[in-house]
Amino acid sequence: MDLTVQQPIGVFDSGVGGLTVLQELHRLMPGENLIYLGDTARVPYGTKSAETVSGYATEAAAFLLRQQVKMVVVACNTASSVALELLSRRLDVPVIGVIEPGARAALRLSCSGTVGIIGTEGTINSDAYPQAIRRFDPHIKTVCAACPLFVPLAEEGWAEHEVARLAAREYLAPLLDSGMDVLVLGCTHYPLLKPTLKMVLPSAVRMVDSAQETARCVRATLKRAGLLNPGVHSWWRFYVTDVPQRFVRVGEAFLGARLDDVQRVAL
Amino acid sequence: MDLTVQQPIGVFDSGVGGLTVLQELHRLMPGENLIYLGDTARVPYGTKSAETVSGYATEAAAFLLRQQVKMVVVACNTASSVALELLSRRLDVPVIGVIEPGARAALRLSCSGTVGIIGTEGTINSDAYPQAIRRFDPHIKTVCAACPLFVPLAEEGWAEHEVARLAAREYLAPLLDSGMDVLVLGCTHYPLLKPTLKMVLPSAVRMVDSAQETARCVRATLKRAGLLNPGVHSWWRFYVTDVPQRFVRVGEAFLGARLDDVQRVAL
Repeated sequence: MDLTVQQPIGVFDSGVGGLTVLQELHRLMPGENLIYLGDTARVPYGTKSAETVSGYATEAAAFLLRQQVKMVVVACNTASSVALELLSRRLDVPVIGVIEPGARAALRLSCSGTVGIIGTEGTINSDAYPQAIRRFDPHIKTVCAACPLFVPLAEEGWAEHEVARLAAREYLAPLLDSGMDVLVLGCTHYPLLKPTLKMVLPSAVRMVDSAQETARCVRATLKRAGLLNPGVHSWWRFYVTDVPQRFVRVGEAFLGARLDDVQRVAL
Repeated sequence: MDLTVQQPIGVFDSGVGGLTVLQELHRLMPGENLIYLGDTARVPYGTKSAETVSGYATEAAAFLLRQQVKMVVVACNTASSVALELLSRRLDVPVIGVIEPGARAALRLSCSGTVGIIGTEGTINSDAYPQAIRRFDPHIKTVCAACPLFVPLAEEGWAEHEVARLAAREYLAPLLDSGMDVLVLGCTHYPLLKPTLKMVLPSAVRMVDSAQETARCVRATLKRAGLLNPGVHSWWRFYVTDVPQRFVRVGEAFLGARLDDVQRVAL
């Protein structure tokens, strides 16, 4: 299949979280046309099994390919954790997940050699981040914590509420004595909790937001393939699997912009 | 279709929450065989649209009918709110939801004439409880609050954690000055939060747990139809749409018993 510069990039997530990745893609590559798919009829992925999430991710990627995308960005940590290899093997276009860019950034920033990782149950159980980090440097120590309440807290608009602070203190307690100097925010919802996490973390700990790192990786990959769109005008299109109302209402905080042109589709 | 006493009762929910209803059914009718379906691959229903939840409920009910059940119990407040009429019209067996039994109990218990209702976004947005209450008594005043974090808090095992207490205080604040003397727990997860809610509510407010009320309604309906199983030995069978591990781990707290014989199925 011959890919062209003008084709859009396809991005998918279980719901609104991946909009933080979309925002970074647009900031870094304003000429790229973007198609976003949120699987809102089956959200969340973070509490579901690897098998089920792989099936959903395969359907989402197939939908994006039917929209003639030149690349698939898996903007969901859980789906990236369990389905990236499968998708890379099966699809004819480049596939980029959020795990490896996040792991790379953590390695670049850590001086102590200990990296903390927080994410959904699915992401943490998959061990994807520690494995990615060890592939680059087997001597790095990793400490992990699943934080299942962070996603509903962010979606409730309570990311900076006292409830979030209390939950963060509880989840991060086992990590604080580890000597970590970097914390990977291994879920696309977590950037909204940055101010809260900052209050709980020692000031020496830096946070890695995989959205930014992933956007850089996307640009580098497109450039290498001669597929980077140098234009300045571009369009976005949004698809969801449930009716759009809630996606629009909750999603605007994640995108940092108005959500227009959202259509419902069946996968 | 001729129904017989020996046929099982079919119960479905989006996940583990309906196990609180199953437990009450068994307590009240130890002779009834029970089939439970948890749609764990698509859980939760509470944040999804009426349209999508109706579709899922229709598939769940169809699965139960294929298992030759003599009755379908919709053990999920969200699905009962948006899909009960549809299911009652379409199915050849009696269909019982959790809304009407809860509404009846609230009316029986309230002296002040003001009833509070808490539930998921889907249940509260549907207005199903206020409508059911007004059908019995148009003079009753209702006050409602959606509490989206209660489900993840209960599933995290944090139902009695300080985080839950703080969230409960926030959610219930607008209801406390209403004069309500009854609070309907309009979600099958909420009975786990009873001790926490008790600390936040004035002592005069009584809580209605629709699981118990629904079990009474099921017994009355079976009796009227001559379908009540008078036996003392019975079996349970569990089906889920995702792999069973998480359902078993989280579900035992909801059922108050061991979960054996859980099989994965496609709807």
